[in-house]
This record gives sequence, structure tokens and C-alpha cells, in this order.
Amino acid sequence: MFSDEYFMEIALSLAEEAAEAGEIPVGAVVVCRNRIIGKGRNQTEELNDVTAHAEILAITAATQYLGGKYLSDCTLYVTLEPCVMCAGALFWAQIGRLVVGASDPKRGYSRIQPSILHPKTRLETSVLANESQELLTKFFRRLRT
Amino acid sequence: MFSDEYFMEIALSLAEEAAEAGEIPVGAVVVCRNRIIGKGRNQTEELNDVTAHAEILAITAATQYLGGKYLSDCTLYVTLEPCVMCAGALFWAQIGRLVVGASDPKRGYSRIQPSILHPKTRLETSVLANESQELLTKFFRRLRT
Repeated sequence: MFSDEYFMEIALSLAEEAAEAGEIPVGAVVVCRNRIIGKGRNQTEELNDVTAHAEILAITAATQYLGGKYLSDCTLYVTLEPCVMCAGALFWAQIGRLVVGASDPKRGYSRIQPSILHPKTRLETSVLANESQELLTKFFRRLRT
Repeated sequence: MFSDEYFMEIALSLAEEAAEAGEIPVGAVVVCRNRIIGKGRNQTEELNDVTAHAEILAITAATQYLGGKYLSDCTLYVTLEPCVMCAGALFWAQIGRLVVGASDPKRGYSRIQPSILHPKTRLETSVLANESQELLTKFFRRLRT
């Protein structure tokens, strides 16, 4: 039951929620022993804060829950490849595993430097990538009309 | 009166405040038309949050003050070279100018990729670098004893 797709579906529902609020649809969850301990969705417009990306909010929520700064036993699921800022935050959090949906050839951290991530972070990409990409495409198409 | 040194001194006093609170001494201020509109100092321990770097807190404070997400008319003064996460945040904020104190050969963004900053951001380094470095050295020396 607790597959990568299961948790990515939850991240996708957060991304949908973001789209409904007029935000670029990106969602993230932090999972520790099959339990969601942090959630986030893009809120840069609502909070008027460029740092309010889904991953940053999910990391902060998870560390508040744990009462510790590090997430080495946790997995972060995010519907879109993290930007440099978020990859930098994941480095500091020492995230144990990172599962990514769609890749971001324009702003993804890997185009700058894949080694931004912590050397101990295991990486999995392209989980429900099409579903995530579809949400983004739909969002930007609607913006342009 | 409103020289780079003047504002860096204020960032340094925030760094000192951080050290007194047991935090790695880094301080930052955002200045717009010679007015400080955002301040931050490292609070990762107190807030139990790896994202609570001086720059992130200063950017968030400044954008809350302005009511806009972008800081293209502002300067951020920070006592230590930003890490990748903070440089990524400064990219999103489109900071107009970045003034740095000491460089950080271990975790500074420039060792990864200088182009993380926004192409329009003007960069000034080594402003009161010795004073900043001294605070850091003193802090880590005390930690080790």
C-alpha cells in the first residue's frame, strides 16, 4: 500500500490545491516510517514570499513535528524537481531520500549542479511525472488565455 | 553616512546577537533607499529549522514590509557568503545588489556555481570581511573548548 506512487498521489493532491488557489501547482510531503510528518504546497503568491515553496514548507513542518533539524530517516516526495534553493534546503536537512515527479529543465537544481544534494541522499525520479507535468501544463495554459 | 560599511556594521551586530544566542554568527539586512526594511540573523537552532538562515529571514521580512515578492531595488548585506539555499532564494527575490562580508570556501554558493545568483544582481564582496571572520572564528573556538 505505501508505495512511492501512494505518497506522490498525496503530493499531487496538494499541487492541485495550489492550482485552485492560483499558485503554480507543486506539492510536497515528508514521510517517515510510512507516516506523513510534513506537507507543503506552493504558496509564494498567497504568502507573498519567494521562499514559500512546497519543499521548504514541508521540511519546516516535518522538523517542527520531529523536534529535530535533520530528516535523514525521511523521504521527501515532490511533484516537480526542486529548484536550487530547495535542493540547498534538502542538503541542510540531510534528507534520506528524495522522490521527484516531473523534471524541471528550466529551474531544476540538476541543471546547475546535481551535487547540491547531500551525498547521502538517495534519489528517485519520474514518479508519476506525467500526472505532475499535466497539472503544470494545464495551469500555464489557463494563465495564458 | 549610508555607506556599505554602515549597513554591514548593522548586519554584524545581528551576527553578534546570534552568537550570544548560541547560533553560528551570521546576520543580514535588506536595505531599500537607505532604509532597512528587513533584518535576520541565523536562528536554525532556536527555531529548529534548517531554513532559518539570516538571509531567508531578512528576505521574508523585507517582502512582507514591501507587500511585493521582488527586491530588485534593494541591497542585501550579509556577513558571510550565502549558501546555495540562500543564493537560490536571492535569485527568486531578484535582489538588486548583494554585499557580502567574509567568503565561505566550504559552503558558499560560489564554490558550487557563481551563476546561481540572478543575472541582474550586482555583487560586492569582502566588506568588513575580517570583522565577520573574527566573529565566526571566536564562535567556533569557544564551541571546541
